[in-house]
Formats: sequence, C-alpha cells, structure tokens
Amino acid sequence: MATGRTHRPATRSRGIPEATVARLPLYLRALTALSERSVPTVSSEELAAAAGVNSAKLRKDFSYLGSYGTRGVGYDVEYLVYQISRELGLTQDWPVVIVGIGNLGAALANYGGFASRGFRVAALIDADPAMAGKPVAGLPVRHTDELESIIRDNGVSIGVIATPAGAAQQVCDRLVAAGITSILNFAPTVLSVPDGVDVRKVDLSIELQILAFHEQRKAGEESGPAAAAAARPGTPARASAPAAGGGKGPEGDVPAVMPA
Amino acid sequence: MATGRTHRPATRSRGIPEATVARLPLYLRALTALSERSVPTVSSEELAAAAGVNSAKLRKDFSYLGSYGTRGVGYDVEYLVYQISRELGLTQDWPVVIVGIGNLGAALANYGGFASRGFRVAALIDADPAMAGKPVAGLPVRHTDELESIIRDNGVSIGVIATPAGAAQQVCDRLVAAGITSILNFAPTVLSVPDGVDVRKVDLSIELQILAFHEQRKAGEESGPAAAAAARPGTPARASAPAAGGGKGPEGDVPAVMPA
Repeated sequence: MATGRTHRPATRSRGIPEATVARLPLYLRALTALSERSVPTVSSEELAAAAGVNSAKLRKDFSYLGSYGTRGVGYDVEYLVYQISRELGLTQDWPVVIVGIGNLGAALANYGGFASRGFRVAALIDADPAMAGKPVAGLPVRHTDELESIIRDNGVSIGVIATPAGAAQQVCDRLVAAGITSILNFAPTVLSVPDGVDVRKVDLSIELQILAFHEQRKAGEESGPAAAAAARPGTPARASAPAAGGGKGPEGDVPAVMPA
Repeated sequence: MATGRTHRPATRSRGIPEATVARLPLYLRALTALSERSVPTVSSEELAAAAGVNSAKLRKDFSYLGSYGTRGVGYDVEYLVYQISRELGLTQDWPVVIVGIGNLGAALANYGGFASRGFRVAALIDADPAMAGKPVAGLPVRHTDELESIIRDNGVSIGVIATPAGAAQQVCDRLVAAGITSILNFAPTVLSVPDGVDVRKVDLSIELQILAFHEQRKAGEESGPAAAAAARPGTPARASAPAAGGGKGPEGDVPAVMPA
C-alpha cells in the first residue's frame, strides 16, 4: 500500500498514546466546525467543551503534537486542523472497499464523511451477481469474485464490511488474505483476525443507550427540582453537543462498540 | 412518554458520573458476549480488556452500581448484565421513530442492535409521499404529516434523524415540538435544540480515522523492528477488539462524533 509508505508521520506518531489518538478525531471534528465558521483561534477550554473532553487532557494531547497554543490567544484553528489531519494520516489518500452493498453498504457509499476525511471509496463489492454493475453512489457494484484483484489493483489497505453477520468472517478472511490490514466492521458479529490486523467496529445503538439513560433520568427529575437541576443539560450548547458531549465529565469519551 | 416515568432508576442513577454512564454500554456489550458463551463469571481484568477500559476504572464504575464482585471469583455475568441494563434503562421499552427512510434509515430500521437493547422502532417516517405505505423492515413507511400524531400515539421520546442535512433541523424542530426529548442525529449537520433536549450524533468515519492512524504507523514499522513491536497489536484478541479496544491505554475510550 504505497499510500502508507511515508515514514515521517509514523515516526512522529510513535510517542502518542493510544487514548490521545482516539481523541484526535474529536478535536478535528470540533476544529473543522470552527474552521467552517471562519473562527481563527480557539481556547483550550472552548475546544475541550466542543469536543467533550476536559481542557487539561486536551492540552496534554496537543502537547504530543507539539502544539501549545498562544497564551491569551489560544490555538490557531487552521494549523491545528492541518496538524491533526497529518497526524491521523488523513492528508494521505486512503482507498477503501466496502463489501456488502445492502442498505447499510449503500448508505456508507453515499456517506460524505468518508471522502472529506481522505477516505476514497475505491470499490463497492457484493456477493449478489444481480447487483454486479449496478451503480451505487456513482460506482458500479463489483462482484465478490473480483475482491482480490480490486484490492491489489487499487492498493487498498482498509476494508469496510457491511455484510450480514453470517458472511462477515469469510469476507474478513478474504480481505486479510488479499492484504487488507485494517477492517471496519459493521456486521453484528465478532471477527477473528491474525495478529497485525486491526478490526474496529461501529455500533449504532450505543448512542441510543446513552440517550435512554438520560430519558430515564429526565423522568426521574419530575420527583424534585434538585434532581432536575442536576440532570438537565446546563446549556443549549451542551444539549446539542456531539456524542462526545455525552461524556460531560472529564473522561466522558463515548466509545462506539457493537452489541455482541 | 410513559415509558420513562419510573422514578427508581433515575433516583439510583443520580450518583453515577457521566463518564461512567458512557462506559456502561461497553461493559454491557462485553458481558453480553460472555453470556452468549455461557461464561458464568468474569474477572475485572478480563472484562476490562474486553471493554477496552482499564480494570481500576471498571471496578470504580461498578462500585457506583453497588457491584463489587467476589474475590477470586469475579463478577457474576448474568447479574451484571441485568444491573447495567437496568441502570441504562434498557429493561424498559423505548419506542423510537426513525425519520428519513433512505438507505441509512432503512439500514437502521433493519438494525438488530436496537431491538436487542430495548429500542423498539415504533414508526418509520419519510417526507416522500411515494414512500408512504411501503414496507421497510416490516413496517409501513408513514408520511411526515403524521409525525406529531405518531409520536403522541406511541409515547415516543427518542427520535432518530436519518434525513439529508438540509432537512434535519426542521425535522428536529418538529420532533422537539411534538415532545421528543432525545435525538440521535445521523444527518451531517449540527442541530440546535432547546435546553433539556439531548442530541447525540453518530459518526461513521471516526473509526476509519483511527484505522488510518494505525495503517500509517504500520507503514512506519518497516523502518525498524522496535517500532514494529511497539505498534503492532500484541494479541489477536487485541487486534480484533471492538472500537473501544482502540483505546489501549486506560483512557482509550473512542467517542463517536460527526465530522462537522
């Protein structure tokens, strides 16, 4: 995968804790929002609030990037967007294949959030011969038979699995055998992969579970104003905070996992 | 929303930090996996590893539930599943509506992870009259005109927005006006809501960003075995860990947020 063969970022990255890496996309999201509103600088407190992380942790995280901000001015938004994107490797082109073009696969193919982060959908692959050739999100669906050649020809290193649970492991095995070393799994199953292959899962119900907790709490508020004050979001900004905002405490990062 | 009007859980919940709440679904996922394999008990270390949280944090989190495990035996899996589900309010029935039945909305309607967590899809709503009445995931799609009555008649308190970005705020406003107090937003836009309404967002690209970082790192490994040892996942279990496993450090929870 020629796309990844630059040594500088990896070298720079070795010192960064995994937990910091996991928060970088959060900061990037918040910074991108500021950038789109042409906000030139942001304080660690403002950015931490937007990212749902506490500000001391944010400053520590940014220190790994060598970014310390300017006292009284804050952080330069554009430069931080660049720094974090570079650190995450998003300044590179990452061709990805999506396997399983049902509703979810099609939704992912149409999902703007991938391309905007450097993830180029190189191919859509489905096992159904009837799907082959059909255009989805402007790409003709390819048959699973072509999986290996598609990955080789496009230098794909990241595979997205959106198949039914029953097909996921077999697809995973083929992706890995074809050289894929990172897999994003949307299938409701646990995949086993060899050492050296990263598998990450997205759960679509985790956020609902957090919301359920708050709904339950809101119902409880009716029992007393003190409880209400304790439980009700303090500001509209908080109420409309992204998922990370659900962690209103200093460590309130919200992991995305599958229901097993 | 009669479903949420039980006071006991909310009362019990007041003492639990937001960050702990955010980790409960992680523990639940890992415990459910153990339960499905008929594992009766689990140590805090095993469960922490499966959930991608450090064991000290896990023990602290469980202490809020009044669950301390048994020395030398660990935690009772079934009881913990019950405790956490109850704490999150998942032992209740949570009717949800999904608005916007494109590929994503349809994928969500078919998503098994909702029902298994107590989230019952009460109705699918779309603005396209041509969609009205069409069955999706066994439910006839309803027209947006019926949104208010559907919410009222079903006691819905949680709305899922899967519309295009341009329609999301208007749909959000109608949901809130109709009494919805929790919104899960899949639309690529920032929603503003009044105080007291919780909005959470799911990002489908965050996990890819974490994978990109690791891909970049793997490429960098080629520059030296030490780096490789440092970067390569230590065990298959880790390699196939859920998203939370991406946080291999004690604070490595992976939030799910939208790219703004």
